[in-house]
Amino acid sequence: MDYRKESLKKHAEWQGKIEIKPRVEVDTREKLSLAYTPGVAEPCLAIRDDQDKSFTLTRRWNTVPVITDGTAVLGLGNIGPLAGMPVMEGKCALFKTFGDVDAYPLCINTTDTEEIIKTIKLFAGSWGGINLEDISAPRCFEIETRLKEELDIPVFHDDQHGTAIVTAAALLNALKLANKKLEEVKIVINGAGAAGISICKYLLSFGAKHVIVCDLKGIIYDGAPWLNEPQKEIAKLTNQSKKSGLLKDAMLNSDVFIGVSGPNCVTKEMVKSMNDKSILFTLANPVPEINPKDAKEAGAFIIGTGSSEYANQINNVLVFPGLFRGALDARSSTINIEMMKAASIGISSCVSDEELSPDYILPYAYDKKAHKAVSKAVKEAAYRTGVNKI
Amino acid sequence: MDYRKESLKKHAEWQGKIEIKPRVEVDTREKLSLAYTPGVAEPCLAIRDDQDKSFTLTRRWNTVPVITDGTAVLGLGNIGPLAGMPVMEGKCALFKTFGDVDAYPLCINTTDTEEIIKTIKLFAGSWGGINLEDISAPRCFEIETRLKEELDIPVFHDDQHGTAIVTAAALLNALKLANKKLEEVKIVINGAGAAGISICKYLLSFGAKHVIVCDLKGIIYDGAPWLNEPQKEIAKLTNQSKKSGLLKDAMLNSDVFIGVSGPNCVTKEMVKSMNDKSILFTLANPVPEINPKDAKEAGAFIIGTGSSEYANQINNVLVFPGLFRGALDARSSTINIEMMKAASIGISSCVSDEELSPDYILPYAYDKKAHKAVSKAVKEAAYRTGVNKI
Repeated sequence: MDYRKESLKKHAEWQGKIEIKPRVEVDTREKLSLAYTPGVAEPCLAIRDDQDKSFTLTRRWNTVPVITDGTAVLGLGNIGPLAGMPVMEGKCALFKTFGDVDAYPLCINTTDTEEIIKTIKLFAGSWGGINLEDISAPRCFEIETRLKEELDIPVFHDDQHGTAIVTAAALLNALKLANKKLEEVKIVINGAGAAGISICKYLLSFGAKHVIVCDLKGIIYDGAPWLNEPQKEIAKLTNQSKKSGLLKDAMLNSDVFIGVSGPNCVTKEMVKSMNDKSILFTLANPVPEINPKDAKEAGAFIIGTGSSEYANQINNVLVFPGLFRGALDARSSTINIEMMKAASIGISSCVSDEELSPDYILPYAYDKKAHKAVSKAVKEAAYRTGVNKI
Repeated sequence: MDYRKESLKKHAEWQGKIEIKPRVEVDTREKLSLAYTPGVAEPCLAIRDDQDKSFTLTRRWNTVPVITDGTAVLGLGNIGPLAGMPVMEGKCALFKTFGDVDAYPLCINTTDTEEIIKTIKLFAGSWGGINLEDISAPRCFEIETRLKEELDIPVFHDDQHGTAIVTAAALLNALKLANKKLEEVKIVINGAGAAGISICKYLLSFGAKHVIVCDLKGIIYDGAPWLNEPQKEIAKLTNQSKKSGLLKDAMLNSDVFIGVSGPNCVTKEMVKSMNDKSILFTLANPVPEINPKDAKEAGAFIIGTGSSEYANQINNVLVFPGLFRGALDARSSTINIEMMKAASIGISSCVSDEELSPDYILPYAYDKKAHKAVSKAVKEAAYRTGVNKI
């Protein structure tokens, strides 16, 4: 099937992928008097006197907006806020289906960092958590960091951390199959935008020791003149041998390639130059860094992509519904690194040792058991680290 | 039943009166590929190339936020944005039940006029229309006026116009029973906030000629020293005889009293001083300007209140679901005076001459036929005045 052509037709039929449904009846005088005036005055006054009750007397406890400025939508780039809406609505449908979270899509018509922060803060009292989406780097780092500091509800930029969490889950299982250790393998990350930088930091926090990040100009090293602030920061944390050169130089004798870059930038020769039992996660969407068939022919041991067309889809759909479900259930004040790690381990544990194979390293995105495992692990981590408020 | 006590209990049980529901399935690989990546890229690009398609490829065509700053919630006053949420959620449940509109509650944590305007504008591309709610006067006038000017979707402050529209509908039918003419009757409006000023202007536009508005300081006249800008404007349009004095002076020999003020400010004596077949709409919530029983004893012919506890509830629940349904169906660029008048006439026409009685001048708030009549009339008026975009 030509998914894109068919999807356009379907979207025109659907006219929207989500809707608002009442959870109460209001169609008699009595019901109206309870759900609305005059009865509703009482929960209003209860919240006025104790703001915390907004979490028990309204839907706030289960509500998360999915907010974009449309600057980094899928692999399509800066297509503007309105054009991002089909993705946001899709995420909201996924949020409810797999996490029972009431997510609402919002597109914001500015790319100004301070304006985005301020606007979201002004509405934050309406929500139990905030999911930032498809905001381009490096602004996304500042926006997320500041909102995390200034709000006491979970804030999560899915393109950074969702991708990192599911990639780590895939890597844990792939390394198990390859019989290699995270601390020992040489990892190359291609792409130094939101996802690449986040994956890099996350794998380091998980114990990886040998990571090299590349961007379009080649290997990133401490002191490279073209780096932006977030890239300068990771330059200090990676590539200790101060290697320079191109992507092909980085991939020579490496064990793991993680691509969050663009189509067809990896050749068969580059795959052949990697160590034995090489692992390639080519996540560029919709066209991966190398066609999985070519990578296989060149000797790759395990291949994962961002697409559902191939085996081992590495997609953050596996992360965000369960992650927010767990955070909301604990009424967590934040989403911390321990909660993220719990999500990665939760996902990877859904594939048993018997099931694990080079073509099956992750549960399917639509596997409800996996989403449950994530929410449970995340909730437990919130309690363990004391960020729960209930 | 003690509605307020029972309502608090119910709200704690409900934990929210609305939720988000997917309108598509996403639980197989194929469905996921159509509603989400990779298929979703195509509707995104279609909107990028033609922003108008945001109305056909996403839910935008049916989406309205209910936005408050919590400064004038019910009769409770400035209770803060979070405390307004139970009312906003209630309205959203009503929007869907009676208008099939997907309404979403938002509370904004600022009372600064410019900040509110800017924040709403930044998100406006997400929505098909905007319902402002429970924002105090005089800021609400500026906020609504500016948003109407600067956006090309319908913007509606329900406390002003919803109340005016349903009050006019009630008055049309009450005058029919009293066999009096709108152009001839003497009308006293008590309360010069959002609702009072809006009712005044609206009745004038409907043909009323003899209107006096009072506030806490007494009769408003051109040149009165205590008036704010919106009040100065209506002082020029009303009270041509430059009467001054107190509410009791205004009510002497009047035909119609409309109260949007506070509890128990009207005495039996004041009612007795009105003309024969007097009409009193005492809309203060939750306690009216005079108890309906006292008003009846003092000779009132027709009495309406804002509450469901008495006959003739005059509540804007009858207005906003159908009004937005009609405006959205026409993809109207605005809500103009002709659409509002159509809504009033639509509501009043739902009570036939045979049904009409001093205790039944309006359809019930939960009468689905009435909501349908409003949406049909409003849609037709949008087409007639050429503000439709489809």
